[in-house]
Amino acid sequence: MTYRPRPVSGFPEHLPEIRMAEQHMLDRIRATFESYGFASIETPSVEELEVLLAKGETDKEIYTIERLQADEAPGGESRLGLHYDLTVPFARYVAQHFNDLVFPFKRYQMQRVWRGERPQAGRFREFTQCDIDVIGIDNLAVTFDAELAAVAIQALEAIGVGGVTLHISNRKIFQGALSSRVNPEQVVPIIRAIDGMPKVGRDQTVRLIQDIVGGLTGNVVANAIVKLADTRATGANELRQLTDEFEVDREEYSEGISELCSVMDHLKFLGINNVVADLSIARGFDYYTGTVYEGRFDDAPAFGSVVAGGRYDDLAGAFINKKLPGVGISIGFSRLFAKLLADKAITATRRSPADLLIVLPSEERREAMLVTAQALRKRGFKVETYHAPQKIGKQISYAEKKGIPFVWFPPFDDGSQHEVKDMASGVQTPAEIATWNP
Amino acid sequence: MTYRPRPVSGFPEHLPEIRMAEQHMLDRIRATFESYGFASIETPSVEELEVLLAKGETDKEIYTIERLQADEAPGGESRLGLHYDLTVPFARYVAQHFNDLVFPFKRYQMQRVWRGERPQAGRFREFTQCDIDVIGIDNLAVTFDAELAAVAIQALEAIGVGGVTLHISNRKIFQGALSSRVNPEQVVPIIRAIDGMPKVGRDQTVRLIQDIVGGLTGNVVANAIVKLADTRATGANELRQLTDEFEVDREEYSEGISELCSVMDHLKFLGINNVVADLSIARGFDYYTGTVYEGRFDDAPAFGSVVAGGRYDDLAGAFINKKLPGVGISIGFSRLFAKLLADKAITATRRSPADLLIVLPSEERREAMLVTAQALRKRGFKVETYHAPQKIGKQISYAEKKGIPFVWFPPFDDGSQHEVKDMASGVQTPAEIATWNP
Repeated sequence: MTYRPRPVSGFPEHLPEIRMAEQHMLDRIRATFESYGFASIETPSVEELEVLLAKGETDKEIYTIERLQADEAPGGESRLGLHYDLTVPFARYVAQHFNDLVFPFKRYQMQRVWRGERPQAGRFREFTQCDIDVIGIDNLAVTFDAELAAVAIQALEAIGVGGVTLHISNRKIFQGALSSRVNPEQVVPIIRAIDGMPKVGRDQTVRLIQDIVGGLTGNVVANAIVKLADTRATGANELRQLTDEFEVDREEYSEGISELCSVMDHLKFLGINNVVADLSIARGFDYYTGTVYEGRFDDAPAFGSVVAGGRYDDLAGAFINKKLPGVGISIGFSRLFAKLLADKAITATRRSPADLLIVLPSEERREAMLVTAQALRKRGFKVETYHAPQKIGKQISYAEKKGIPFVWFPPFDDGSQHEVKDMASGVQTPAEIATWNP
Repeated sequence: MTYRPRPVSGFPEHLPEIRMAEQHMLDRIRATFESYGFASIETPSVEELEVLLAKGETDKEIYTIERLQADEAPGGESRLGLHYDLTVPFARYVAQHFNDLVFPFKRYQMQRVWRGERPQAGRFREFTQCDIDVIGIDNLAVTFDAELAAVAIQALEAIGVGGVTLHISNRKIFQGALSSRVNPEQVVPIIRAIDGMPKVGRDQTVRLIQDIVGGLTGNVVANAIVKLADTRATGANELRQLTDEFEVDREEYSEGISELCSVMDHLKFLGINNVVADLSIARGFDYYTGTVYEGRFDDAPAFGSVVAGGRYDDLAGAFINKKLPGVGISIGFSRLFAKLLADKAITATRRSPADLLIVLPSEERREAMLVTAQALRKRGFKVETYHAPQKIGKQISYAEKKGIPFVWFPPFDDGSQHEVKDMASGVQTPAEIATWNP
């Protein structure tokens, strides 16, 4: 009478060897975040439903939680839902703890999030995100926009993910360029059209914008805007040259160009190369107000964004009567990890974190084995000890199956000496507890 | 028009400085687990309700999850619930991945769990547990029972929690002792009475057992059993001496004593001292079958168990037709951390992980500051850079508020040199990027 368990669609789970690779990557990402002084926070997995919906209806599917054995109506208690991203909980956190935080507040948050999707192949319903944000009070220097780009790129490098370019733009550029030429209500549709250009192509985008603007100027505007969106530059000087030919007299436009140049300059100082100023980057519309980022695989554009983010005017306006501008960037870790797994880009051979397996030659040597193990642990090694004086071949085979790289032989009697076998080379050599190193 | 967020009862959340202390402790626990070769796994936060209830009704309150915007009845999909411990998910995991695991399988798991409690002071509804288990096929050497005790104690030491003694017993001792003297159906009630002895006292426990056994032998049995439960020994020899006077001819009894002696011997070899063989330890009844552990504060017995666990005959019988005996121990991390916070046993002064803040003397020195920062990061330091060329006093005060221990002054011009101020001592000295160390 057994209940046969099955994987639950959308809730990934890994074998120990895969988990070890995952954990290593998360450690490296965390170390990169901390190397720039970002502080960890974690928020509860749930928020009050009012918080999750504070910015109006969300298009993210929410899981609510209910007590199975609820013995009465929840008197006065708000309904709770699992958070669907880390931005809303962070906004609530900053509002709630405002007086206890030091600004500019630099935080990272690496947690699971949940989306109540209908089960379907390739869609995660539980996944891990790695977010960093910097929040200021009333204003926040544009230097942080560059810092976040650098951190995101270095985090990807730290986990061995190459071939990603971070495409950076600034919302103000298009807003300024458009506001001098079209009616205010046409701005959003045009930016949406630009956002869709990679999918529908250049010509179709020109036609779309012509239709939006209409009249005699439609053609002129459409071509100018698409040309502006085609701008790519790897440095501030190049960007200035390319954009100088667009004669836009709006301050917002110049500000956007100037901020983007500043970000590119900063990144040069920080030694970050795989970035490009790319004016086609739009990233939705109603949220970001300045810098926008999107990191994409150079040779797998269909994957979409590996990292993404941008600058916003006011993080926590729904929760506190303060103006808290910020800039944030997020690594969709689970999706990226799933891609690396599918690409066989992850080598997972170790099923134990142990550096060493110490064998047990005979029951009489158990004390010697345990004492040796503790001495090696004190030196910082991770050590498994074998549990029974079985045939040495069986013990070695255990190390092999678990991918433990070294097997340690304690003395067979008080006269003999310690030896260590390198499992990769098969070579066995004498060793001292106090001095051995792999 | 703001929605004022409030803490959700039972879902703890910490400021960055407290989170840093928490994260440090979790890192140390993890390092201890890995130092014995335990491999990390993580399971989804949810399980099918059938899995959570596979062992029959549970007394743990379960949270189910439901899609807020469910557009139809969940066709054929099982209901999902958040896991209320890490044992049930682990059992399901082992059954599901049985063919891909190497046994004895040593795993650790540090995850959040949820209990759908009604909100009340001091009760967590979301908390972190740190579990380790070893699972064998058909049988598992008693050496692992000792190893788990050692790991648990060393994990507590690693996070600076002192004054905890691990009390160890073995279920077989009482089962054997009782089965030779009382009717089978009296065994469980008597062990429950022993379990309650710390609360109701010795005399009341004797009376309880007299009532259970009844008749002429009641008095004799009650006094003998309570005396047996009073046994405390710090080593195997002492334990043998103390228990020799109880003449029990059942094999189960001798096996229990012998296993407990073996555990105590192992712990001596491993250099673990703060353990005691304590025959009053019972830990419920229907789950554990051999070794049982309970770690308690010597001077705060009312806190209950800091760590607890034991040996069980069959981990995953509800899910797979194999006999998988195991031994496990669990650290109730969140409860322990809350106690340490309440006791002010945690010093939390750093609001940033940064070792250094590099100041920006003037806008012209920005490149020098950023280049310096990258060079120090390459050397492994965690570095914040100040964002604007504000008054140096203001920049230093930022480091002070965030608890950053060193402030780095890049050259004010190309002729001058780097200097570092130790914030604790106030002393400022020249420094080289390539060689500086705190």
